[in-house]
Amino acid sequence: MKAVQVTGYHQNLELRDVPEPKVTGPLDVVVRVGAAGVCRTDLHILEGQWAEKSGVTLPYTIGHENAGWVHAVGDAVTEVSVGDKVILHPLMTCGLCRACRLGDDVHCENSKFPGIDTAGGYAEYLLTSARSCVKLDDGLEPADVAALADAGLTAQHAVAKAAKVLRPGDVCVLIGAGGLGHIGIQSMKAMSAATLVVVDRNPAALKLAEQLGADVTVVADGSHVDSVLDLTGGHGAEAVIDFVGEGGSTAEGVRMLRRAGNYYVVGYGENLDVPTIDIISTEINFIGNLVGSYADLQDLMVLAARGKVKLRTARYPLEEFGHALGDLGAGKVRGRAILVP
Amino acid sequence: MKAVQVTGYHQNLELRDVPEPKVTGPLDVVVRVGAAGVCRTDLHILEGQWAEKSGVTLPYTIGHENAGWVHAVGDAVTEVSVGDKVILHPLMTCGLCRACRLGDDVHCENSKFPGIDTAGGYAEYLLTSARSCVKLDDGLEPADVAALADAGLTAQHAVAKAAKVLRPGDVCVLIGAGGLGHIGIQSMKAMSAATLVVVDRNPAALKLAEQLGADVTVVADGSHVDSVLDLTGGHGAEAVIDFVGEGGSTAEGVRMLRRAGNYYVVGYGENLDVPTIDIISTEINFIGNLVGSYADLQDLMVLAARGKVKLRTARYPLEEFGHALGDLGAGKVRGRAILVP
Amino acid sequence: MKAVQVTGYHQNLELRDVPEPKVTGPLDVVVRVGAAGVCRTDLHILEGQWAEKSGVTLPYTIGHENAGWVHAVGDAVTEVSVGDKVILHPLMTCGLCRACRLGDDVHCENSKFPGIDTAGGYAEYLLTSARSCVKLDDGLEPADVAALADAGLTAQHAVAKAAKVLRPGDVCVLIGAGGLGHIGIQSMKAMSAATLVVVDRNPAALKLAEQLGADVTVVADGSHVDSVLDLTGGHGAEAVIDFVGEGGSTAEGVRMLRRAGNYYVVGYGENLDVPTIDIISTEINFIGNLVGSYADLQDLMVLAARGKVKLRTARYPLEEFGHALGDLGAGKVRGRAILVP
Amino acid sequence: MKAVQVTGYHQNLELRDVPEPKVTGPLDVVVRVGAAGVCRTDLHILEGQWAEKSGVTLPYTIGHENAGWVHAVGDAVTEVSVGDKVILHPLMTCGLCRACRLGDDVHCENSKFPGIDTAGGYAEYLLTSARSCVKLDDGLEPADVAALADAGLTAQHAVAKAAKVLRPGDVCVLIGAGGLGHIGIQSMKAMSAATLVVVDRNPAALKLAEQLGADVTVVADGSHVDSVLDLTGGHGAEAVIDFVGEGGSTAEGVRMLRRAGNYYVVGYGENLDVPTIDIISTEINFIGNLVGSYADLQDLMVLAARGKVKLRTARYPLEEFGHALGDLGAGKVRGRAILVP
Repeated sequence: MKAVQVTGYHQNLELRDVPEPKVTGPLDVVVRVGAAGVCRTDLHILEGQWAEKSGVTLPYTIGHENAGWVHAVGDAVTEVSVGDKVILHPLMTCGLCRACRLGDDVHCENSKFPGIDTAGGYAEYLLTSARSCVKLDDGLEPADVAALADAGLTAQHAVAKAAKVLRPGDVCVLIGAGGLGHIGIQSMKAMSAATLVVVDRNPAALKLAEQLGADVTVVADGSHVDSVLDLTGGHGAEAVIDFVGEGGSTAEGVRMLRRAGNYYVVGYGENLDVPTIDIISTEINFIGNLVGSYADLQDLMVLAARGKVKLRTARYPLEEFGHALGDLGAGKVRGRAILVP
Repeated sequence: MKAVQVTGYHQNLELRDVPEPKVTGPLDVVVRVGAAGVCRTDLHILEGQWAEKSGVTLPYTIGHENAGWVHAVGDAVTEVSVGDKVILHPLMTCGLCRACRLGDDVHCENSKFPGIDTAGGYAEYLLTSARSCVKLDDGLEPADVAALADAGLTAQHAVAKAAKVLRPGDVCVLIGAGGLGHIGIQSMKAMSAATLVVVDRNPAALKLAEQLGADVTVVADGSHVDSVLDLTGGHGAEAVIDFVGEGGSTAEGVRMLRRAGNYYVVGYGENLDVPTIDIISTEINFIGNLVGSYADLQDLMVLAARGKVKLRTARYPLEEFGHALGDLGAGKVRGRAILVP
Repeated sequence: MKAVQVTGYHQNLELRDVPEPKVTGPLDVVVRVGAAGVCRTDLHILEGQWAEKSGVTLPYTIGHENAGWVHAVGDAVTEVSVGDKVILHPLMTCGLCRACRLGDDVHCENSKFPGIDTAGGYAEYLLTSARSCVKLDDGLEPADVAALADAGLTAQHAVAKAAKVLRPGDVCVLIGAGGLGHIGIQSMKAMSAATLVVVDRNPAALKLAEQLGADVTVVADGSHVDSVLDLTGGHGAEAVIDFVGEGGSTAEGVRMLRRAGNYYVVGYGENLDVPTIDIISTEINFIGNLVGSYADLQDLMVLAARGKVKLRTARYPLEEFGHALGDLGAGKVRGRAILVP
Repeated sequence: MKAVQVTGYHQNLELRDVPEPKVTGPLDVVVRVGAAGVCRTDLHILEGQWAEKSGVTLPYTIGHENAGWVHAVGDAVTEVSVGDKVILHPLMTCGLCRACRLGDDVHCENSKFPGIDTAGGYAEYLLTSARSCVKLDDGLEPADVAALADAGLTAQHAVAKAAKVLRPGDVCVLIGAGGLGHIGIQSMKAMSAATLVVVDRNPAALKLAEQLGADVTVVADGSHVDSVLDLTGGHGAEAVIDFVGEGGSTAEGVRMLRRAGNYYVVGYGENLDVPTIDIISTEINFIGNLVGSYADLQDLMVLAARGKVKLRTARYPLEEFGHALGDLGAGKVRGRAILVP
């Protein structure tokens, strides 16, 4: 089959002919790929940033946001059948370690990550596990949702944590209305009645944020911390969800936080650098956020099926992977790019 | 001033001339009544059902759902000023007992309940406490919200508990789309992404429920338990909120519940009568619900100010209290009746 | 191998020679039984009480509280190895359904229950799943803990729920200091600083309760509700954990409950029959409790390994199953009876 | 009356004769001081570190850890009476703002802090509020508990948060077995069954930690991070409670944390400086901790009354304040110093 592979760092991806994956284990599932999201992480992989962390052996197939149709299943697979439309949780988890047993499968001690440390979805077929397959509603197609599998799931997960403790009278600031942020806005509006303030440097992104349900938008033009404080009677917001995490975002975000408020770290890049006296005297919390669990992905698919979370996608045939990555790198993609085999 | 008083049980209310209340304590607040909700409990009071429980001395002024304008304040009142529009939490609480200190002021050990055990709001003026006053948004008037002060607050409170643990993939059944129920529907849609199934005997009530956001409506015609089971793949719902609590409602509602589900008891009348073996073998929970806390009332006013919770009211001048209660007793009131002095 | 089987209801168990179980599936584990707890449920099975519910085909081997040594494992088993000492969670769960994925494996939609609906542990060997095996600390032997696998786990689970919300100033009433209760007392003392009041009809049981850590003991002699109210300044207890659930226990227990208190239903037999007006006017909750999750069993084994939860056992050779069950039925067993092959 | 006052920064405290405080407001309480804790913050006040933050006008009486006997009460005081033994919550809170109404009185928007921004307890009498008084058990004396009013309450508060989510199988690392730490050890052992690992540079402090219930002690000698990792199978601890917060403590503590673990910041001094990629890739949380609420202080007094939390104190007569502060500055105080008028 055709697959797009990393053959070396700092060089172009290659379209190669590789063997189709086969079912060998009892929970194995082979999926015919319907669409694979093109993500900034793919660019970072090519730059070698993940080489050491993932320990992957080259060449290998990338693509970690995948959806498609079940093509073949192992003996012990019960929840999906050949032909089912599925989106794939980005991790293949063991189901047996303490984290998995507690429902916190993202922290599985034995997980694999297709597209990062094993063969991913820029290909015609992909090997995954029954534990990673979430069946799609009749009204959804793999290409509609593939790009929600990792980025969208991360936004959903962080927002769900925040929504659980936000009351209608509370204010939530969301920093960054880009790829994750615009999913986060929709998730938050669906799951909570908190006032949602969206901060971004880009007025066009804020316009979209308004359409997606932001109650207030604030341009990050240097006066944005003061704007948020003004909006909240000088007290600050009960929650800040930071989808940026670089360029001074955290220092600004912390200043927007109310006493006893929660800061959700999602975007990354810079250091979180806060005097401990400020942390204790205002009793604020910093909450780390990784990708969501399998159940979070089920939840996100419910929101997608009801039209509460919509994704704008730009489709490229699998062979045009270079074009897609080029457009992404050049900032030319509106919404999320996907490769369709 | 004019006040509508209970002068004896099993006899009509009387409009009498009584002294205006005065501020004597430091946290006292006298409110000029803008509107008072007319509630089924008022009928029950006249039937003597509350005589023993409340221990009130006749004659006294009834009316326990009140909103208006601050008319006079005690020395220690800081959160409201004369002229402010306010809705009144139904309880006057002490702020000092363990329950109050934990934020659970509804269980205050020293509370009074105007309209039930002390003078209420079917009058021109009402004595309350600074601890009971929630300021209204500029866009809301006392007459818009008075009838939310007790019934609406109860619905908000129960729904907020349920919403906190409901995930987007979950199903919530709401039994009874009447006075409390139609507030509950709106609160739930504002605060959660769960699928909301509304059950009622009255097709007209279900039509309104749909307009207010119910995802599915089910006529309680004898096949409703099966309908809910069908809707949920035979598993039942993660939550049932029962605004009825009589006429067999609880037995039916329990059959609609999924394993590990939560049953919120709000309406009352019959006994909850369930074999303990059924409780433990399915591990279901029954959650009692009284009126909401002061903070819940603040939250409800936020929802009202944003138009997320709307109340249909039928206005009567204070003098026409007899007419209003008569219409209520005869089932002729659409939405909630209020008295306007 | 030897196995004790149900060959017909209302007739004696029989010791028979049956084939040893074999590993066939990838997660299968065959355990050499070290000890099997003898439980009142075994008597109920013989009386036919479970015949319809379990749907089991006779003859079959009973015994649902099992511990031993891993004898053989399937291909996909990673967490235990041949020779490991293990206690077995009473359920064999799928790991794939929504409940399992949320960590709530007790509500697995595809579970089996060895000793109830498939072959159990009154035998030399037992077939189970890798998902059911909890490795034992070096200091524990199968015979020490087997009888904790179901009854003890149920107590641990209910107590853990209660302990999570009890503060040091709170009072917890524990009704029933028998099999489950005496484990519950130890778990509660290990996990919480609440005041623990133990109620039982049997003064000898209360004496043991004191030794195990009860702060106060109350003989259930008719004045016990008043005693609990006196102890709590007339307010009642923040939590009641009812290990009895019959003979009027629930009606008495509810009267011991404080406003906003939690009633944990563990024992069963009678109906919970409470006026809904009492539930809502005091805002009390009823929490159902089944056996604990896999993680709860891990927790209980931690407490056992540290000597915080101790079990008194009476050992019988496997062949003396009739003697053991007879003693149990006659109330002659102190602590828990176990069969040792 | 006699009072020890700050008359200027960078100069000695002075014993002066000042007027006794009087009750003027309805919730005012005048307490005859039984003992006042001598705290490192008192040294910092003299160094001027709090001058700007507190905005206090000199001269004023310091002392923020106070206990004694109720001497006079305002009209609206109901929970305490003249003669009662009380410990005082360090803050005087309004009871009316949103934070107070939610039970989170530490974040009161209108609080005063006796000893910091208004007259404190290094005196014969102290003016406080009914909202600050917690009655003492008959078995406790003001001098036994005064030093728990601020430092102890902070430890109790942080530990209670951690204990609520720790399971018996979890590991909690406590950094710093000094003033707060040795209270924290006792609180944690009383409220949780987690394994408690205590880290400190001082072997003598660790010896005391063992006596107070630490399961494992680790000398902070450079290999302590590795020791904790070894103890936890390389995974790290579910919780780290950091009572130090300076000298590199946070960087070391973060390395001891397991994936999805919680870091409780209590001690302060240095910056928390962590790469956001580490926060999100391991999904760790940082939880700020200020002093506890009124209810937390009630809880701590319950633990003290039962002998579960004990404090070693060194008593000085009020007039020997200079001696006490000198000993504290010189590291000569074992346990906590208190001034007794």
